[in-house]
Amino acid sequence: MVDTTQKWNVPRAAEVVIIGGGFGGVDAARAFAGEQVKVTLIDRRNYNLFVPLLYQVASSQLSPEHIAQPLRRLFRRQKNLTIVFDEAVDIDEANKQVIVAAGEPIHYDYLIIAAGARDAYFGNDQWSEYAWGLKSLEDAERIQQRILLNFELAEVAEDPAERNRLLTYVLVGGGPTGVEMAGAIAELSRYTLTREFKNVDTRHTRVVLLEGMDRILPPFDPELSAAARKSLEKLGVEVHTNAMVTGVDARGVEVNKDERIEAGLVVWAAGIQGASINQGVADVAELDRARRIIVTPELHIPGHPEIFVIGDTAHIPGPEGRPLPGVAQVAQQGGKHAAVNILHGIAGEPYEPFVYKDYGSMATIGRNSAVASIGGMKFSGYPAWAVWAFIHILRLINFRNKIYVFFKWMWDYVDYNRSGRLIRNYSHPHHTVEQSKSQE
Amino acid sequence: MVDTTQKWNVPRAAEVVIIGGGFGGVDAARAFAGEQVKVTLIDRRNYNLFVPLLYQVASSQLSPEHIAQPLRRLFRRQKNLTIVFDEAVDIDEANKQVIVAAGEPIHYDYLIIAAGARDAYFGNDQWSEYAWGLKSLEDAERIQQRILLNFELAEVAEDPAERNRLLTYVLVGGGPTGVEMAGAIAELSRYTLTREFKNVDTRHTRVVLLEGMDRILPPFDPELSAAARKSLEKLGVEVHTNAMVTGVDARGVEVNKDERIEAGLVVWAAGIQGASINQGVADVAELDRARRIIVTPELHIPGHPEIFVIGDTAHIPGPEGRPLPGVAQVAQQGGKHAAVNILHGIAGEPYEPFVYKDYGSMATIGRNSAVASIGGMKFSGYPAWAVWAFIHILRLINFRNKIYVFFKWMWDYVDYNRSGRLIRNYSHPHHTVEQSKSQE
Repeated sequence: MVDTTQKWNVPRAAEVVIIGGGFGGVDAARAFAGEQVKVTLIDRRNYNLFVPLLYQVASSQLSPEHIAQPLRRLFRRQKNLTIVFDEAVDIDEANKQVIVAAGEPIHYDYLIIAAGARDAYFGNDQWSEYAWGLKSLEDAERIQQRILLNFELAEVAEDPAERNRLLTYVLVGGGPTGVEMAGAIAELSRYTLTREFKNVDTRHTRVVLLEGMDRILPPFDPELSAAARKSLEKLGVEVHTNAMVTGVDARGVEVNKDERIEAGLVVWAAGIQGASINQGVADVAELDRARRIIVTPELHIPGHPEIFVIGDTAHIPGPEGRPLPGVAQVAQQGGKHAAVNILHGIAGEPYEPFVYKDYGSMATIGRNSAVASIGGMKFSGYPAWAVWAFIHILRLINFRNKIYVFFKWMWDYVDYNRSGRLIRNYSHPHHTVEQSKSQE
Repeated sequence: MVDTTQKWNVPRAAEVVIIGGGFGGVDAARAFAGEQVKVTLIDRRNYNLFVPLLYQVASSQLSPEHIAQPLRRLFRRQKNLTIVFDEAVDIDEANKQVIVAAGEPIHYDYLIIAAGARDAYFGNDQWSEYAWGLKSLEDAERIQQRILLNFELAEVAEDPAERNRLLTYVLVGGGPTGVEMAGAIAELSRYTLTREFKNVDTRHTRVVLLEGMDRILPPFDPELSAAARKSLEKLGVEVHTNAMVTGVDARGVEVNKDERIEAGLVVWAAGIQGASINQGVADVAELDRARRIIVTPELHIPGHPEIFVIGDTAHIPGPEGRPLPGVAQVAQQGGKHAAVNILHGIAGEPYEPFVYKDYGSMATIGRNSAVASIGGMKFSGYPAWAVWAFIHILRLINFRNKIYVFFKWMWDYVDYNRSGRLIRNYSHPHHTVEQSKSQE
């Protein structure tokens, strides 16, 4: 595609395309506000999602509307941005265009790939049918529905073994998602649902957390791992470390090739891999073992200074040769940095390397306990939970949704705003079965 | 089934079975609190629904969680009540038992049928595929999703005719549902979505309300009908009276056999008929033209003093020989009355005839206008809207959900309550295709 406008020195706004409206993509898009660029944001969903609270939707604590906001609403004041509700399926680097499922190819001068991650089953993709991940609203709602149904089916189950199976939950992976989900299910069964059933004592629900390493929350300090374990066990969660899942089927899991756990629901939180769109640049970029795109310290593909990759989609070199972790902070800071580098590029200035500022990490265990590691300080128990709640309230306010929920009804009558406009389970047209399969 | 316990004069609590957890069923069940009866409430959904605000879910103003509450939560303190999450499919009057889809038959001494209504297409059932009713959460969510999608598809439509079709909404039936839905779609497109799209001016959305009679809201005073029409037209709604729908297909409707309206969504609010369970008593009861069960003034089936029918399921003789209208008040008062009569029956006392107290009726048109007829007084415009809002806030508070929404998040951390536990789209097991078909 020859750009004829440049031949005549007609100034043309640079075209920036962003794939993905998650933490990274949204912060990148925002960084272009007011700049002389034409930004196109492509997402197959019509909303931005506050992923750290997804487990609360899965455990019926929050509604989808509380943790998702329509992208069009979010960007309605940013004049230089267009939202394309479509699915990016491939990248044509030679012609600098993104191929989408339904519409025409979209040209870019600069591209930011911020497509996120999906669950990794480490060569056992057939497990995905029974061990459900928790990466999307659909995932969270599917898990939520299954939990609610399990209690109803247990209420009418005649076989005690079947009833016990329905009341057993297995969480695979002792990272924050597994820990938080285990705590949430334990609290749901021990506090929320008590007295509602006649034949089932929901307090006898069995919640099993399986971790392959020798402690849960491995990236945290060992002291915090121990504190988290203690908090979970206080809630009645069985924590099994050095427990590798060696089989998954419709009725449970096999652990370390010798133990069988019958379960009514298996949640998979044991690992992630780069989004499938990464395959679209596999001819010009190197992927790591987790199928993430390996980028330069400036966050672009080596040899392709016009293609940036950020967030969970990217393998970003970090300290001690290890890639930066797949957390929201890395995505947000990376999104902003990629945008700044693109503006440098447009201005003819050199790129700057990305320096990640780690503000700490946290995981919550139920409503009164958490572990947090912030600026070298370690917290656990209630103080950590207070820190967790404070920071999440701040972040959600920034996300325009927490305080918002309180005043939503009242406000709606004044402002005509409606936050719940989330399109779910939509299959984009022109999608063949093969494409659908390759996407997830 | 011989009841041996009575032979020996062993006191046995009378068994009352209620089919349906809507307004009528819930108020009937509540009326038995503390009484010496054994109550079983059967519902195929696990929640009670505040139907008058369903149109607000369909128009993205409220979330499903705001207008639905789990039945188990609602009745967790009523010791003499058991909830059966199953679908009543037939009634065996000879053996006094209700046949359910998944579980064992359930015996009753007294039965209350409060199964609600479904949409009536007056001999054109094939229209139901394209002209969607608004009777359930699933209906509301389907309509909500279609509206949101239509705007997205219009944004990328290349054919202007197709874009116009996608932006045309037809509401069939000028009763409260049609009027309220028309106002809500008009407001959504004219206020909420403006500025969010690049290619589409959502303010040009066409909203058409079709009514077969010579005025909308026929049960209201003609003055109020005229006021409602004026309010709708101010919002840009096209009101067509004397407009009979004579055809419906995937792309629009035909009116009075000569006019064609291409539409992106057709909502059917033109009539209802009794629930399909009514067929289960057709051998012992008479059904009216709308398939409602005709009952005595005491609310039971003639000749069957042990089978009561209330709400939209019943044809209850009213003043001037006309049946009472299918509104929440009739269901709630009838539910309570049926329960009181059953308690009379258990005590060996005679039944009392049902006397309906009409507290008035209302319909709202957008956020600032309504029509209301209360105790002989007529209101329209903003005063009527204020009355509407006040009464609905009171009713929702009674429903534990409006003020509730404001404090939900805060409260959740104290009380461990969670309101959003709604099982949706669940197919009960042991269900054959034929049974499913006969249900809707």
